[in-house]
Amino acid sequence: MSAKDNLVVGQSGGPTAVINQSLAGVVQEAMKHEAIGRIMGMVHGVEGLLKEQFIDMRSLSSGQLETVAATPGAGLGSCRFKPKVEDCKNIFEVCRKHDIHYYYYIGGNDSALSAGIVNKIAREAGYELRVFHVPKTIDNDLLVTDHCPGYGSAAKYVAQCFMGNDADNRALPGIKIDVVMGRNAGWLTAAAALARVNPGDGPHAIFLPERSYTLRQFVDSVDGAYQKYGRAVIAVSEGIADTDGNTFLESDRVRAELKEMKMDAILDAFEASGKVEDLSGGAKRDAFGHTQLSGSGALADFLASATKIHLFRKYAQKFRVRADTLGYAQRSMAGVVSEVDAQEAREAGVTAVRTAMMGDIDGSICFRRVESQSGKYFCDTFRASLEDVSGVNFPAGMKQYRPMEDRLIADGDMDVTPEFVEWLRPLVGTLAPKGLIELPRKS
Amino acid sequence: MSAKDNLVVGQSGGPTAVINQSLAGVVQEAMKHEAIGRIMGMVHGVEGLLKEQFIDMRSLSSGQLETVAATPGAGLGSCRFKPKVEDCKNIFEVCRKHDIHYYYYIGGNDSALSAGIVNKIAREAGYELRVFHVPKTIDNDLLVTDHCPGYGSAAKYVAQCFMGNDADNRALPGIKIDVVMGRNAGWLTAAAALARVNPGDGPHAIFLPERSYTLRQFVDSVDGAYQKYGRAVIAVSEGIADTDGNTFLESDRVRAELKEMKMDAILDAFEASGKVEDLSGGAKRDAFGHTQLSGSGALADFLASATKIHLFRKYAQKFRVRADTLGYAQRSMAGVVSEVDAQEAREAGVTAVRTAMMGDIDGSICFRRVESQSGKYFCDTFRASLEDVSGVNFPAGMKQYRPMEDRLIADGDMDVTPEFVEWLRPLVGTLAPKGLIELPRKS
Repeated sequence: MSAKDNLVVGQSGGPTAVINQSLAGVVQEAMKHEAIGRIMGMVHGVEGLLKEQFIDMRSLSSGQLETVAATPGAGLGSCRFKPKVEDCKNIFEVCRKHDIHYYYYIGGNDSALSAGIVNKIAREAGYELRVFHVPKTIDNDLLVTDHCPGYGSAAKYVAQCFMGNDADNRALPGIKIDVVMGRNAGWLTAAAALARVNPGDGPHAIFLPERSYTLRQFVDSVDGAYQKYGRAVIAVSEGIADTDGNTFLESDRVRAELKEMKMDAILDAFEASGKVEDLSGGAKRDAFGHTQLSGSGALADFLASATKIHLFRKYAQKFRVRADTLGYAQRSMAGVVSEVDAQEAREAGVTAVRTAMMGDIDGSICFRRVESQSGKYFCDTFRASLEDVSGVNFPAGMKQYRPMEDRLIADGDMDVTPEFVEWLRPLVGTLAPKGLIELPRKS
Repeated sequence: MSAKDNLVVGQSGGPTAVINQSLAGVVQEAMKHEAIGRIMGMVHGVEGLLKEQFIDMRSLSSGQLETVAATPGAGLGSCRFKPKVEDCKNIFEVCRKHDIHYYYYIGGNDSALSAGIVNKIAREAGYELRVFHVPKTIDNDLLVTDHCPGYGSAAKYVAQCFMGNDADNRALPGIKIDVVMGRNAGWLTAAAALARVNPGDGPHAIFLPERSYTLRQFVDSVDGAYQKYGRAVIAVSEGIADTDGNTFLESDRVRAELKEMKMDAILDAFEASGKVEDLSGGAKRDAFGHTQLSGSGALADFLASATKIHLFRKYAQKFRVRADTLGYAQRSMAGVVSEVDAQEAREAGVTAVRTAMMGDIDGSICFRRVESQSGKYFCDTFRASLEDVSGVNFPAGMKQYRPMEDRLIADGDMDVTPEFVEWLRPLVGTLAPKGLIELPRKS
């Protein structure tokens, strides 16, 4: 390496509330090391790198950098680009051309994987490139690490949203269904459990993608909460699936249940909305004749409809059923940040640079809890291999992401265990208070 | 009045993040006055009062009261009950039976109206009842007052949500449509404007219920932002209406436009979803064959579909269009509270009791800005008549709520004026920062 080797840093995938903290950590730490020359920000991740679009990160004042760090979204721009081997070769060529010897990529496991490939190509070419993956995902489904930067803040948003929704639902009783992000893993949906502070608090059931359900189980669980509390607040992962592993709106089993429950009108409505999507270039249809499942209120509205019909038939009265799809605010709400998460995201960036300076040539930064006698939360960082984090060498059929472990999911599959709540609590930092005036049961 | 007259306090309508501050203000101040005997909380507003369901508010410790004050939702329970004259007579009889001589009702203008009727009945009966309305609404559409407690916190939520959504949209460019609460007045939707901090920040258009639009205007405004910024973030009130004053999903004009734009498939989809709602006791249909408009993602999904089809046809490429319906978090998100709003909501409760103690026998508490040389924000409280606030004596045809004034809406009808932003800014308290790394335009 020359005396002044350049460093490049980029951001990839869905933004989080603290991904810019990791960016600031990388830049801030890199500034301290004489060995590092230019500090280059990739514009929109590797997409920008391939076009040689860079930002001179040294031109930012520390004040500017701190303001960006406190802002959600990816300050450098992000991308959804999944680089193939050919792209990785081109990425390497751009690095060589610009004397880049430090490569930092902040993202999920696709990012770790692509970083690993770039790393391998560089080594084969005899070019020293220090390649580090800095973890971020609100889904918390990266392998190896205890938890992922970005998750704590999203979990705080979900918990406080459910706190408020539950208080609202107590004030004006009815059925409230909230659909939470996280298609493959239920970590974020499970965070709704933190909203329980006082007796009877919702969520009264939590539906996770790690388990399978029938539509009948869903409406029965709402009914059960209603019978017990006169109201119901239900947390549902957008990835809620049947016994075949198909999500509800892709499920032939749920489709069959709807027919059996004489709710064919719902299927007709999906078929009709699928035709709308055909007009905008919609791709292949799912079991419901629908093309786009995420980024719309489809699942929430579907569950609300089925519930409303079920309860109306059972009790012969119209029910107030409302469903919210929590939306992008989960990953990008300004001002709702876990201070623990922000600090750890910063630390992940700083550690990635320090690790390289101490001689490691590649890796992914992970977190490990440190046992303390008082039970106080401490987390330490460590370096894992890019291969282990991306799961690239896993045997076929083994999950390349981390679902919630069985011990964190309650018997009956519709709730989490106290162990999960204890594990999660320190990650969200300060939570809003939730007081209660004990009311007599409404007659 | 006897030496120890009892006081009753209740909460009504949709909860807010700070309605419990007003409750705490009434209770806290009432405790200070020897003339007041029992302090009774109505369980679920006048519904509970009519059933003589009360909470002894003196039994709460000040610590409990403060925790409840910091919690969203209505701690005493709320109701959607619109009392008729007969009900008001019954309310009065319950007051007489329980030696209640102070009546405090925290709510919107229906609450002011019902309080006014109770007041009149009491006076006719020669019974001294001091009747006060304490304002709350996230819609900010009460008459007389400068602004309403509850609005500042909801506006903060909307502003920070748009800040985050805009940062997210910058990071991964696409079209983002957010539907905001407020059917009759655009105050809350307009708060999205506070998300603009840096050049080019969204929202790039704001659609308000005070103006009328065509669907063509909507899709063109999205396209305009896309051409200018390569992305678009759009704020839409759930009350967006056509030139006849019908909301988009109730509009025959929009229906006709859809046919003209060859988007009949959208109408078919609405017709099909209307049939779903019939199964759950759905009431009369609107122009789209749909029965339930609010509390679902229908408007957001509709606007997203029409936009996606329009852009796909124009540019022959599939667009990433996402729409969120901001949901109940707007009125009840825990932890997102304007400190100014919280303080004013408390003050409204306190002032309502003090005003009664100083001899006024009825009224509604309002806010008035105090001019200051430095431009610093000061607000004072004053008593208005229940009749003026409820608008009960207004000439027929005059609005019994307060829409945004013309001077606050920009020419072209798709934005607010700088005057609005200046008026709003102090009400939301501390806002999250929003930093920006200036990126070259994506090629």
